[in-house]
Amino acid sequence: MKKLRRSARIADMTQYLLEKPHLLIPLTYFSERYGSAKSSISEDLQIIKEVFELEQLGELKTLPGAAGGVKYMPKVSMEQAKKWVEEIRVGLEDSSRILPGGYLYMSDYLHQPQIVNQLGKIFCSAYHGLDVDYVMTVETKGIPLAYATAQYLNVPIIIVRRDNRVTEGSVVSINYVSGSSKRIQTMSLSRRALPANAKVLIMDDFMKAGGTIRGMMDLLLEFQAEVVGTCVFVEAEHKEERLVDQVRSLIRIKHIDSTNKQITMETGSLFDNLE
Amino acid sequence: MKKLRRSARIADMTQYLLEKPHLLIPLTYFSERYGSAKSSISEDLQIIKEVFELEQLGELKTLPGAAGGVKYMPKVSMEQAKKWVEEIRVGLEDSSRILPGGYLYMSDYLHQPQIVNQLGKIFCSAYHGLDVDYVMTVETKGIPLAYATAQYLNVPIIIVRRDNRVTEGSVVSINYVSGSSKRIQTMSLSRRALPANAKVLIMDDFMKAGGTIRGMMDLLLEFQAEVVGTCVFVEAEHKEERLVDQVRSLIRIKHIDSTNKQITMETGSLFDNLE
Repeated sequence: MKKLRRSARIADMTQYLLEKPHLLIPLTYFSERYGSAKSSISEDLQIIKEVFELEQLGELKTLPGAAGGVKYMPKVSMEQAKKWVEEIRVGLEDSSRILPGGYLYMSDYLHQPQIVNQLGKIFCSAYHGLDVDYVMTVETKGIPLAYATAQYLNVPIIIVRRDNRVTEGSVVSINYVSGSSKRIQTMSLSRRALPANAKVLIMDDFMKAGGTIRGMMDLLLEFQAEVVGTCVFVEAEHKEERLVDQVRSLIRIKHIDSTNKQITMETGSLFDNLE
Repeated sequence: MKKLRRSARIADMTQYLLEKPHLLIPLTYFSERYGSAKSSISEDLQIIKEVFELEQLGELKTLPGAAGGVKYMPKVSMEQAKKWVEEIRVGLEDSSRILPGGYLYMSDYLHQPQIVNQLGKIFCSAYHGLDVDYVMTVETKGIPLAYATAQYLNVPIIIVRRDNRVTEGSVVSINYVSGSSKRIQTMSLSRRALPANAKVLIMDDFMKAGGTIRGMMDLLLEFQAEVVGTCVFVEAEHKEERLVDQVRSLIRIKHIDSTNKQITMETGSLFDNLE
């Protein structure tokens, strides 16, 4: 690469770091890339670090020593995250979104990259300390959110299927009971999808009784995987006992009345410990 | 925002532009954000522009005048894209990936954000001039790719379902004939998913006879939408006449032999006009 002056170097390093979150990049890499001394690179990184902190983009972590380097960890403060989620909550709390059965139309939110990336960044911030290897979801609506989160964590996603299609090779299938409808359903995952002992973050767009999440946890047992967390975008109120606990949500539906078209929501359990 | 010096301003502008592709940002926005003169902002943008060109990240387009501003358009040259695709092709051309029925296991590739984002950037580069309003795919395996492309185009995605679930509201369903198996299948899309006259880019992970793509095109007729392009990650050889034409692929399977476990691939039709 041709020799760049500081400002150009900083533009390039910024994009490079943003594109490769959670990857340790040796300072030597940058110093060779730009033909610059490591001391200059360190100063550049300090400038970027301050901007990232100021703008709440995340942390630039510098690890010293021969095996050291710099790592960008996307992160948003829980206060900022709560503001983002509040804006979305207001948008979702619209009675025209209520569907039969106490469901809510929210695909428009879950399909907009700008919004989904915000949500993914929130989940990344909440779980990045847990050494997540994979983000897992079940088809279909949680996939964009799982992808966005995986992108910030820089790990692959795993998509559980509700049937077993021909194009996945041999699969492991389990039956599970949907918590709301009490019906027996099937979910399956390709044998090749997951190595043993993987650390998996389970994610879904919506949870009521928790049957689907429970199913994913049971499926992971078949793969000797470890569940490091379970999270959903929206959880609905559920009067009976849940099939899972410790699920963290961004939004909680307090009350939904399909007949009179009324709905009230609040921020979810992820924010419960914030004052 | 507190006053930043040039290098810090450039780090901040770089991240801001990268996060908001295809959005016109007035120079006034930056000059107010940093309390800097527009002339300084223009110089900053020139530096970023040169780095983005050097690194093949895309184009910074400056539009003059009162309604003007700057817009970041992610773009990769077709030569660079071909190199990326060649690397993936070599990885896919592995006989252990061959599944019964002439299918190929490629979920591991389609689930890695770093790879999928490269593919999304290629599709964005190929179609960004066509004023795409939505990127549409059918569940399940093409969703991450559609999301990545939509992210660079900065438009929402549309996910067609193979059944009609309760949580989508009223849906439009069509029957279509799967080109390979000749079976009648159903696909549906929520009424609310798409306004009339939208310009839609159709995308899928895999195409053989083209029945699924044909189905999506027929479905879009019901929404008075315009198909501005159709593209797939991998197309398989198909001896009979295709149900669709002008589908652009990144990779083409030349020959696949499930019995003897042999496979040959080449770069797809998107690259056909490159010498």
